[in-house]
Amino acid sequence: MRLRGNAVVAQSGGPTAVINSSVSGVVQEWLKSGPPGLIYGALFGIRGVLEEHLVDLSTQPRRIIEGLRYTPGAALGSCRYRLSREEDFARLLEAFRKHAIRYFFYIGGNDSMDTADRISRFSGKKGYEMRVIGVPKTIDNDLPHTDHTPGYGSAAKFLAATVLETGLDLKGLITGNRIVVLEAMGRNAGWLAAAAALARREECDAPHLVYLPETPFERKKFIEDVSAAFREYRYVYIVASEGIRYAGGDYVFSGSGIDPFGHARLGGLAETLKEMIEEEMGVNVRSIVLATMQRSAAHFASLTDADEAYMVGSAAVKEALRGRTDIMITLVREDGDLYRCGTGTVSLSRVANVEHRVPDGWIDPSGNYVRRDFLDYARPLIEGEVTPLFKDGLPDYVHLQDFDLPELRRRLDSDAASIVK
Amino acid sequence: MRLRGNAVVAQSGGPTAVINSSVSGVVQEWLKSGPPGLIYGALFGIRGVLEEHLVDLSTQPRRIIEGLRYTPGAALGSCRYRLSREEDFARLLEAFRKHAIRYFFYIGGNDSMDTADRISRFSGKKGYEMRVIGVPKTIDNDLPHTDHTPGYGSAAKFLAATVLETGLDLKGLITGNRIVVLEAMGRNAGWLAAAAALARREECDAPHLVYLPETPFERKKFIEDVSAAFREYRYVYIVASEGIRYAGGDYVFSGSGIDPFGHARLGGLAETLKEMIEEEMGVNVRSIVLATMQRSAAHFASLTDADEAYMVGSAAVKEALRGRTDIMITLVREDGDLYRCGTGTVSLSRVANVEHRVPDGWIDPSGNYVRRDFLDYARPLIEGEVTPLFKDGLPDYVHLQDFDLPELRRRLDSDAASIVK
Repeated sequence: MRLRGNAVVAQSGGPTAVINSSVSGVVQEWLKSGPPGLIYGALFGIRGVLEEHLVDLSTQPRRIIEGLRYTPGAALGSCRYRLSREEDFARLLEAFRKHAIRYFFYIGGNDSMDTADRISRFSGKKGYEMRVIGVPKTIDNDLPHTDHTPGYGSAAKFLAATVLETGLDLKGLITGNRIVVLEAMGRNAGWLAAAAALARREECDAPHLVYLPETPFERKKFIEDVSAAFREYRYVYIVASEGIRYAGGDYVFSGSGIDPFGHARLGGLAETLKEMIEEEMGVNVRSIVLATMQRSAAHFASLTDADEAYMVGSAAVKEALRGRTDIMITLVREDGDLYRCGTGTVSLSRVANVEHRVPDGWIDPSGNYVRRDFLDYARPLIEGEVTPLFKDGLPDYVHLQDFDLPELRRRLDSDAASIVK
Repeated sequence: MRLRGNAVVAQSGGPTAVINSSVSGVVQEWLKSGPPGLIYGALFGIRGVLEEHLVDLSTQPRRIIEGLRYTPGAALGSCRYRLSREEDFARLLEAFRKHAIRYFFYIGGNDSMDTADRISRFSGKKGYEMRVIGVPKTIDNDLPHTDHTPGYGSAAKFLAATVLETGLDLKGLITGNRIVVLEAMGRNAGWLAAAAALARREECDAPHLVYLPETPFERKKFIEDVSAAFREYRYVYIVASEGIRYAGGDYVFSGSGIDPFGHARLGGLAETLKEMIEEEMGVNVRSIVLATMQRSAAHFASLTDADEAYMVGSAAVKEALRGRTDIMITLVREDGDLYRCGTGTVSLSRVANVEHRVPDGWIDPSGNYVRRDFLDYARPLIEGEVTPLFKDGLPDYVHLQDFDLPELRRRLDSDAASIVK
């Protein structure tokens, strides 16, 4: 028999172009299941549970919930917050009990799966029965035991299109910068940077060089690579992952401290590589940093990705209502030439804090490009285009109704002034 | 009677998302006119004429010429090259005579219109009859005597979408950066930065502040603006034009020398504003620089813009065959509520080196936002979406056939090694 009670869905960590599509999948599946209770959205991630900022999503207009399938950003709000103290867990459990919450759907990456796992174990220890399901989300594609993660395909598609387009810009202009360095997100995994290679159709096209964190970086080798490519093409397009490191383990660039989970804050690498090349080769270099564009460019989201993000949200509800708990939904690619993908599950503890990186065999032995196996893996994930509704020439993204995010921000800030540095 | 002879079309300066659409317009109009000669493309702008790198465009497959309507970058190659010495003009005329070139279509911005004007006057002085027609192109929208310029609408659309999307990303994430500074191109005119305001649908949405070069920048006032917006919304999205200056005339940031036309090379402002805010307010700021993306993001080009870019190319040929010379094609907006736009002409000498800037009356008296008149002006220019052909999830852009751009780059480089710094 189904566990009676309400549900909460929350978003965690960096948004993606399709993170809201998973919310849409959770909510729509819940509502059509003859649900055992209400479905709440927790505002600003786990902090929305801790501080009881919950909104009843079943009263949102259907048009809004459906519009989340193509709306970027975290519609419910998101945060990076590490539950560490025993009192945080006690507080959570108190909130769950108070609102009769028995189902918790947590959309996030590695750190969030760790949080979900801890919540599941804590509530179990305290004898409060729950269904805790992780819904994978990260543009970094670094979660293990899933073929890929929702969010990756759209980021990869936007990044590859950007390399294609700015590559044509570079190729066609003979004056000025001849070398471009584009910095991709991805933390310690090179999946996103690697996707740039999808843009290259002819040998002289961008990108010419791709550097991943999986291969130790050597300055001397790098300059040799760039010089050789410059001799060959008279322009060079380089893509590098923010997380590349020297053989000793130091990041080539890491600038601004650590985040609440103890990970180095990356970003700023392109400028370092630009200076390296200018110093050694005496040519002007342009750096391109995609910043939060790569995780929010829903105007060019992958339809495959948006649909799969919805699918994992929907699968999470089905599994929970079937009585499963302490699992993350996975994407399972079927064998065969035609791309087909379904869902599976994996225990949260097997996912938490494990980084899935690009396999050695998919990286060119030169260490400056990817191999065909990677391209065959990644190509289907960027297939298809989402067509959002348009208004006045821009996508008509939706906002959840009846709550005031700026007002809530103000309240959360005064509760925890330390969050602003 | 029509002047018998061949034609050359060339592209100049920074590419745009739709600069090739103008080439397509020129070529297709020429071919269907029962033309008085061949139509050549000059490779890498005026240098392609000087050094006689010309390709016969009439032999290109129809599919390619049509595909130029949605392909970014300069398909013919472009350059920034200032014709200054008498011998350059003599050399040009020699090439024109040798190839029986009587029609010259030059697609570019202010500097290119100046070049076209000089060519026209020089050939006249030497008694060589020509038809020299300027085809406007610039994302900066700073050409006078035209309602707007092809290239602007697409850059504005991409920029506004980026502000909309990265604004949602910022709004939804309560941890980390609370303030974003986005830097827009535009040189000494604020048109492109101003277009960010098209993204704002509700008061709390991005962008909250927009700074244009037309209004002198004051550090103290800027920090007050940002602080006030931060108090109001708890996050702030700022858009600034690369060319903003202090009251004394100095750029707030100008980093890397001057270009061949004597203009300051801009870019790098976002970092300066980021440091200013971090220093004064003690909060982390994220900078976003659109770099060459804003002039090449053809995957999100404005259909209005792409069609108008084609139209000005086509009009240039019609005017030339009618016997007109020494003019630039303009865009003329019709009166009335419904947006309609046709073409007109203006003498090249009235355009050359004149910068058209955002009118004072369209800027908010606060100096940190634009007024409704600007929005009404800009909105129709971003209407409609170009749908390129797709292949494997990415736009299937075309390349002109039967010439080897990298090989030509090598040759041009050895001819003029000084171009590489």
